[in-house]
Amino acid sequence: MASSSSPSSLFLLLSLISFSGVVSSRQLSIPRKPEPSNAAGTARWLAAQNSWGVLSTISNDLEGAPFGNVVSFSDGLPGQGRGIPYFYLTTLDPTPRDALKDPRVSFAISEAPTGTCGKIDPENPTCSKLTLNGKFKLVEGNSSEAEFARQALFSKHPEMKDWPEDHNFQLFKLDIEHIFLIDWFGGPKPLSPEEYLKYKQNQFSLLSLA
Amino acid sequence: MASSSSPSSLFLLLSLISFSGVVSSRQLSIPRKPEPSNAAGTARWLAAQNSWGVLSTISNDLEGAPFGNVVSFSDGLPGQGRGIPYFYLTTLDPTPRDALKDPRVSFAISEAPTGTCGKIDPENPTCSKLTLNGKFKLVEGNSSEAEFARQALFSKHPEMKDWPEDHNFQLFKLDIEHIFLIDWFGGPKPLSPEEYLKYKQNQFSLLSLA
Repeated sequence: MASSSSPSSLFLLLSLISFSGVVSSRQLSIPRKPEPSNAAGTARWLAAQNSWGVLSTISNDLEGAPFGNVVSFSDGLPGQGRGIPYFYLTTLDPTPRDALKDPRVSFAISEAPTGTCGKIDPENPTCSKLTLNGKFKLVEGNSSEAEFARQALFSKHPEMKDWPEDHNFQLFKLDIEHIFLIDWFGGPKPLSPEEYLKYKQNQFSLLSLA
Repeated sequence: MASSSSPSSLFLLLSLISFSGVVSSRQLSIPRKPEPSNAAGTARWLAAQNSWGVLSTISNDLEGAPFGNVVSFSDGLPGQGRGIPYFYLTTLDPTPRDALKDPRVSFAISEAPTGTCGKIDPENPTCSKLTLNGKFKLVEGNSSEAEFARQALFSKHPEMKDWPEDHNFQLFKLDIEHIFLIDWFGGPKPLSPEEYLKYKQNQFSLLSLA
């Protein structure tokens, strides 16, 4: 494989393989990045392809200052994402403690980790980025949404199911109220939560890596 | 090279090559990740090895909610970093506009983009992460610090020097007041801004990729 791939496609493939569950041995095709004119598709592609981002809260410990924290997330099983970021967090961590006091949170992800920006700078507007703002909510452990969230998270982050029980990890989600998307020159793309959430992943065209 | 490297070391190398300026053809060695017990070293290594992160502000547009935004940064030329994140931003972007109204900001980076976490989940505490909180400040354009910041940014992000003049990009920095570091089990590592800033990069041991 290595000898027959260009460094950039190899980097892309290795990047994806490094995200457990994103590429399996059975599924060596990935959704192709939508055109920049397709704001909903690009935003949903970013949410589906990424496995981690930065969740920001109003910090209680830091007297109301913003506080960003690296967290893992998933919006669904590969090809079945709904665009809603689900998290598996413990209140031993300051971020969920903050968000349970003040639910206003911001979740930022970049195209850079997917490998598809190549050598384009992560701050270059053609290396897309997405910030979802809204309310942080606990997902009740016995609901059907909790089952969806658990499968979403444990498929993309297999080690989570073995994380220590005494840490009391819980399922949380971001109820999206505002979307900031940069995927080309010319400033943020207008995109409503409704347009974002109604986009169907089966609209992605596939890029074969096999 | 590809055929003689393991996927993880190849991924690490390609990851580094993808960060322009971090690895040059003349310099195929990189600082080795310090031991987790070395909090200052680990934090400074994260700041030196990363090229982007998420800068969070108190949003003016979103009425005081936190707002995280993906930005590029640099703390210095390779091997000469000072630990202070410097940014090259335009007030066409909401983040510096917010921070010029309320200077309290948070800057979060992960070990994940460096490739050294391998398949360890980005939320696993052994995949280290750093959040720097403090005040956002403009770096005056004709100061010696501005010259350091410009070299720091343009060496790691070569395309920045060609970004459009009419966007009025300016140099900014984060004056660090609080550090949140996770680099192992057991919660955040106590680390003061003083301990972090006084750490000398020449204390890094080198990992040869040649």
